[in-house]
Amino acid sequence: MEVFGSNQTGNTVQSIVRDFLSVHHLVDSTAVVAVSGGPDSVALLLLLHELAEPLQLRLVVAHLNHQLRGEDSDSDEAFVRRLAQNRHLPFFSERADINALASRPGISLEEAARQYRYAFLGRIAKLVGANAVFVGHNADDQVETVLMHFLRGSGLAGLRGMLPSISLAALRLPLFALPEYAALDNIWLYRPLLAVPRSVITQYLANASITPRFDRSNLDTTYFRNRIRHELLPFLKTYNPQIGNALWQMSATIREDYAFLAAIMERTWQESCRSATEKAVTFDLTIWRTLHVAQQRSLLRRAAWHLRRQLRDFDFEAVEHARHFLSAPGSTAGQQISLPGRLRLTMSYDCFIVHDARVSPPATGPQLSVAELTLMWPGETRLPGTDWRLQVESVERGALPANWMVDLWQTWLDADKINASLILRRRRPGDRFLLLGMAGHRVKINELMINRKIPRWERAQWPLVCSGDDILWVPGVRAGAVAAVDAKTVRLLHLRLDRLAADDGSH
Amino acid sequence: MEVFGSNQTGNTVQSIVRDFLSVHHLVDSTAVVAVSGGPDSVALLLLLHELAEPLQLRLVVAHLNHQLRGEDSDSDEAFVRRLAQNRHLPFFSERADINALASRPGISLEEAARQYRYAFLGRIAKLVGANAVFVGHNADDQVETVLMHFLRGSGLAGLRGMLPSISLAALRLPLFALPEYAALDNIWLYRPLLAVPRSVITQYLANASITPRFDRSNLDTTYFRNRIRHELLPFLKTYNPQIGNALWQMSATIREDYAFLAAIMERTWQESCRSATEKAVTFDLTIWRTLHVAQQRSLLRRAAWHLRRQLRDFDFEAVEHARHFLSAPGSTAGQQISLPGRLRLTMSYDCFIVHDARVSPPATGPQLSVAELTLMWPGETRLPGTDWRLQVESVERGALPANWMVDLWQTWLDADKINASLILRRRRPGDRFLLLGMAGHRVKINELMINRKIPRWERAQWPLVCSGDDILWVPGVRAGAVAAVDAKTVRLLHLRLDRLAADDGSH
Repeated sequence: MEVFGSNQTGNTVQSIVRDFLSVHHLVDSTAVVAVSGGPDSVALLLLLHELAEPLQLRLVVAHLNHQLRGEDSDSDEAFVRRLAQNRHLPFFSERADINALASRPGISLEEAARQYRYAFLGRIAKLVGANAVFVGHNADDQVETVLMHFLRGSGLAGLRGMLPSISLAALRLPLFALPEYAALDNIWLYRPLLAVPRSVITQYLANASITPRFDRSNLDTTYFRNRIRHELLPFLKTYNPQIGNALWQMSATIREDYAFLAAIMERTWQESCRSATEKAVTFDLTIWRTLHVAQQRSLLRRAAWHLRRQLRDFDFEAVEHARHFLSAPGSTAGQQISLPGRLRLTMSYDCFIVHDARVSPPATGPQLSVAELTLMWPGETRLPGTDWRLQVESVERGALPANWMVDLWQTWLDADKINASLILRRRRPGDRFLLLGMAGHRVKINELMINRKIPRWERAQWPLVCSGDDILWVPGVRAGAVAAVDAKTVRLLHLRLDRLAADDGSH
Repeated sequence: MEVFGSNQTGNTVQSIVRDFLSVHHLVDSTAVVAVSGGPDSVALLLLLHELAEPLQLRLVVAHLNHQLRGEDSDSDEAFVRRLAQNRHLPFFSERADINALASRPGISLEEAARQYRYAFLGRIAKLVGANAVFVGHNADDQVETVLMHFLRGSGLAGLRGMLPSISLAALRLPLFALPEYAALDNIWLYRPLLAVPRSVITQYLANASITPRFDRSNLDTTYFRNRIRHELLPFLKTYNPQIGNALWQMSATIREDYAFLAAIMERTWQESCRSATEKAVTFDLTIWRTLHVAQQRSLLRRAAWHLRRQLRDFDFEAVEHARHFLSAPGSTAGQQISLPGRLRLTMSYDCFIVHDARVSPPATGPQLSVAELTLMWPGETRLPGTDWRLQVESVERGALPANWMVDLWQTWLDADKINASLILRRRRPGDRFLLLGMAGHRVKINELMINRKIPRWERAQWPLVCSGDDILWVPGVRAGAVAAVDAKTVRLLHLRLDRLAADDGSH
């Protein structure tokens, strides 16, 4: 069988591994090799050991005893220990109670074993100061993985299959979301045999007169993968005898297409996401409307992933449901839809928010969490629990800009018209506001807020600048008339409400 | 069975078709409906007919009699004719000798029928002045198509399946590459039932008490598609009962990812492709080296497609072979590799060329197709068969720029040192050139050309500016000493060799 994806039939498994190490700059470093005792990992260990000296690789062998095959499991461990010791390589093993781990609801035996295995490898790598972990997945494993994703209807992320290299921190290991498993960012997982078919590995071991312990391909995999390997793939070969090669090449093509797209989608996220916290992701609606369908879908999937790392059912229908809601003419500010994973999408005026359904959508404007606050004058007052601040300073008459009414987030008042202390408070029932330039007309605060498109859920805690019984200024809304600057004004107060986070740019 | 990809179970087939027509702005126009007599196309005709009046759609029914089912074929035709006549719709039919067409080497019966069918529909559309052609492919057809591409290991272009709309000009119809089938760009093919499962269509017809002529799904498709429908898909349902829905959604996701990528790749092509003719595509090597693997692959596939529209075997291995050649340190100018489809890739200095293997790679520099040419003086001489021209003009001494030796594509000569007429000719054996500033040193023309990195295959026809026995200037290479400007020079000749195509930017 030819090596997958290669047009040079002269390629040996040795040269493939050598090229792999060279491409990934794996020289002069400590590396953990995961060895189960099956053919792939045994071949991997032998191949790496051949190259270790010239490349100055310090290999460490790690074996996880899954205790799933009774006494055979212990014999596997002894076999791998001997392999390592005969080559004078450090050996680490651990007995894992996978059955206990898999007894948690919703965790299959294979998934529990997978998470334990990678967590264990990460731990050993940190222990020995390695930043590389080698595992033995081969080209046939890759084809099976692609097929499994295909059967689930996966998008590009699944169809690209396993990656030749990936940061351990990027693996999903929810069972091991513990502090001691943090900071795996600098440890990378490598799969040097990902382009080598199983048959080539078998031949290599036969040539080396090594008999591995067991064929992992038949034993420690799930019923589903086994059916794919022993039933579906042989069946698909009756449609295309080269199906293995075809799917391997497909995954290699899609892997790069995906990586290229992902880089562009990252930029899209940076440009259109206003904020992303644990509870909510806010997108700019104006930018959103200019995006390609593929970008919109990518943003929604990423928002769901950001809020719910373990969510698996945020599928095509959820994405399309959200997209259609966002483009429907009837979707106006304040309207919401429910999404899978207890998420909710709330429409606002110039943005929309994907958020935890159990909390209100986060405010995008300033919010006053206390009933009232006395303002420093001159000075700066922080709105408690937010990154908003109100600055008050005394300025000369000449400092009043010609266009002072344009920016709704700052205002200038006549200091001599302010008789009581300046306070910041929330609206009260019946609050009315004397508008500048409207000849004594007092309007309801609520009406003003609706006109200025302040989201309904932000109005109750919107800060108002007052003095005594008078509302002097509604930041972001309108300048007031009570302490307005006029021809006789001598001393001015300059008030400005803004956010500390200068990189945000939005109010 | 639920409608694929929709989360609103209330969607009827009628509303899906109505939305489809609305999204594609199909109102107040003439449209051809392709009706075979099978359930899909009969349902399509009835559904479109229901909407024709309110939307002011003028429907024309077209039926191709494939003559593959004996008398049944004629009965099919009669059935469709009655369907049309009962609704007072214009009816066009044609008897096609598909068997004769399929007798050509390498053309399957289904492929011959496919090409004939679309060519026929394009002809009828042009005849009646329609710019829309409707065909009845349904959601199950789409799933089967995706599966067929998957089995072949197709990339994104295949996995997206059939498109809801596509220009007829974009279909591959090599058997009908005739003038009368040109200009199909403005005729679009639409598939309004692409999201509707076969079962829904069957139910719709049963409700309407219409019995279609035959189930196309069982009869007029190939053995391969039939196996997929009746054998593979039922088998895959034992792995995922929702496989149809899963694959349909996968195709819908990938369709948009592909479209988004394609737009970016188009820009990449515009930026990195220096020229693209029928025989050769030239890429800028400097830009190439900055590109992502996904972009490089896309450019190579597109170059192959540009030169060989019908080439099907320019596969993963060909693309990777080319990429590795281009990045190999040993690949220097003049080296070549063979690619499928009688194509060849030739490395040059700052570019590389994918070209017809039967011709030399095209010159990127100026080439003289005749042995000798007398120059107009002053005036402009075109190099025959190229877009290169040599301009000669008399200028004042003061017009000589200070940096006149920097640009190798123009030179200034002392007019009084030129005794014979100016000619342009190719190099001759033993040609030597007296270099300016090299104190009488005469070098071989060939050595000079190698130093200046003129591709080997361009040297023989490189134009030299001569007078009598003297070579005065080698454009793009070096200024000469024979008629060089010196302190006593009074009258100057300014020579400039450049291309007419100003947008090219490269020499």
